[in-house]
Amino acid sequence: MNTETVWITGTHGFIGRHLAAYLNSKGCRVAGIGHGLWPEMEAMHWGVSFWLNGEIQQSNLAQLRSIAGLPDVVYHLAGGSSVGAAIANPYEDFRRTVVSTAELLEWLRKHSPHTRLVSVSSAAVYGGGHSGNIAEATSLSPYSPYGAHKLIMEELCHSYGANFGLSIVLPRLFSVYGPELKKQLLWDICTRLESGLVPLVLGGSGNELRDWTDVRDVVRALAMLAMMASESVPSVNVGTGVGTTVREIAERITRVWSQRNGREISVELSGKSRPGDPFSLIAYTVKLDETGFRWKIPLEKGLDDYVQWFCKGNQHG
Amino acid sequence: MNTETVWITGTHGFIGRHLAAYLNSKGCRVAGIGHGLWPEMEAMHWGVSFWLNGEIQQSNLAQLRSIAGLPDVVYHLAGGSSVGAAIANPYEDFRRTVVSTAELLEWLRKHSPHTRLVSVSSAAVYGGGHSGNIAEATSLSPYSPYGAHKLIMEELCHSYGANFGLSIVLPRLFSVYGPELKKQLLWDICTRLESGLVPLVLGGSGNELRDWTDVRDVVRALAMLAMMASESVPSVNVGTGVGTTVREIAERITRVWSQRNGREISVELSGKSRPGDPFSLIAYTVKLDETGFRWKIPLEKGLDDYVQWFCKGNQHG
Repeated sequence: MNTETVWITGTHGFIGRHLAAYLNSKGCRVAGIGHGLWPEMEAMHWGVSFWLNGEIQQSNLAQLRSIAGLPDVVYHLAGGSSVGAAIANPYEDFRRTVVSTAELLEWLRKHSPHTRLVSVSSAAVYGGGHSGNIAEATSLSPYSPYGAHKLIMEELCHSYGANFGLSIVLPRLFSVYGPELKKQLLWDICTRLESGLVPLVLGGSGNELRDWTDVRDVVRALAMLAMMASESVPSVNVGTGVGTTVREIAERITRVWSQRNGREISVELSGKSRPGDPFSLIAYTVKLDETGFRWKIPLEKGLDDYVQWFCKGNQHG
Repeated sequence: MNTETVWITGTHGFIGRHLAAYLNSKGCRVAGIGHGLWPEMEAMHWGVSFWLNGEIQQSNLAQLRSIAGLPDVVYHLAGGSSVGAAIANPYEDFRRTVVSTAELLEWLRKHSPHTRLVSVSSAAVYGGGHSGNIAEATSLSPYSPYGAHKLIMEELCHSYGANFGLSIVLPRLFSVYGPELKKQLLWDICTRLESGLVPLVLGGSGNELRDWTDVRDVVRALAMLAMMASESVPSVNVGTGVGTTVREIAERITRVWSQRNGREISVELSGKSRPGDPFSLIAYTVKLDETGFRWKIPLEKGLDDYVQWFCKGNQHG
């Protein structure tokens, strides 16, 4: 992987910055594009040698090329990142997830057809009604506009693979958490704990099952999956295959928090499920396993690290 | 259906103008939006009381509303209309088919959620590998970017039906022909015959099977299917269920032509299949049959009428 030039869309986001740091540590030159003000020193800290704050569209991609050179691999992480936001403003989610991908695919088709594309999708494409480990070949019926747009993104990639020979792989991420994640369950729990509002009351039944993955493992998986990019556009679950309930996560976090802060806190669940929220999303992992990829960070350590990061004042590093 | 206000996107196109004339004859007020210069008198001739020449996007839809009032039904015909053009410029086809639909759905969600939407799709979503009548529930694997974008259009509609309660129906059109069609097989044959280049040599093997439907029947089907629009977003094949080869069509057209012009012309096939061209696309028609819809124009009469229209100098009317 040494001396490769890689581009990351959405570099400024939670997963993007971890991926940039990882690829940079492996010797890649990393250029990024997407939304977000990012002081040069901060971007450099994350291993990003050039950051273009702008939409993913033809003229910006041309500018990125003129500065960073053609990419060997593009990691496409830009896109909508919240089910709730997609329900509130579906057209914005469509633009971020679908139109950005159409722009990127078209640019690659015209200007860099041999670049490998890792176009990052989500377990949200599976939708609800699942009870065990979900294989990639399962029929897709997303629950929310967020999931629908990810599915559409995948289909655009299939079209550009089949019709124009682009080499693409579609990792489907499950519940990614880790330092720098400033939304979703772990963030909400820590924020509520910090505010001192006890007992902790959370939405949902608490029995929702998710496949929790630490971002520091996930970025290694993404880098490995770049090798699998092909015209046949394989999709690959990036999950551990183990489901853990929201309640267990909340209890673990509050226990770690209590140990750090010397206070007993109990967790209560509202019992109301949230719209667009499937009951169970757990990966069937044979395809990922066959690449040789191994998960390194156990859930317990990942959660401990998250609380530690949060309590340090959410500083990066 | 009397006194309904309907909008038609892509009204200026081949199917759009026939649909406008039909709905107007049934007492509807028809307003249209899409690409194309259309002198007011000509638009009026086709039953269109207001025509807005522009992109399907929020501000233009708002303008259409201020002039024509909220629609009871929108017939969404705008979109890419050629497999070849979609292969040559996939991003343009994406914009026409997918982005226009996203804009329309979002506008309806915000401003007219009770409007019924007839979002017109294509048998191209089925792709290749079929040998008999294709049912709507068949798994979809489009062959070309044109078909991929129609499939994506359908999925956007499913998302807005399931997540936001819009009432939508997805007619899947097969091989629509008829007066005003100025491209594809029939047009190519007549144009070649008119130019006097004999024998007539056509692309493909000639054995490709298609389900040929006269536009004057198709617009009646579209009007009827508006009643089926619902949150569950049903898709319905608009085909006769009968397959006829390209060779048979070409021979029929040349026979009619020869009779009119007193010259014997033979048909030859190049034997080379065209990219993005499935071998067989024939509808399974039970869903359409159950609506009570009946086809009225036999293929022989439809082809005769087409040649007659062509020979009259392609005048409308």
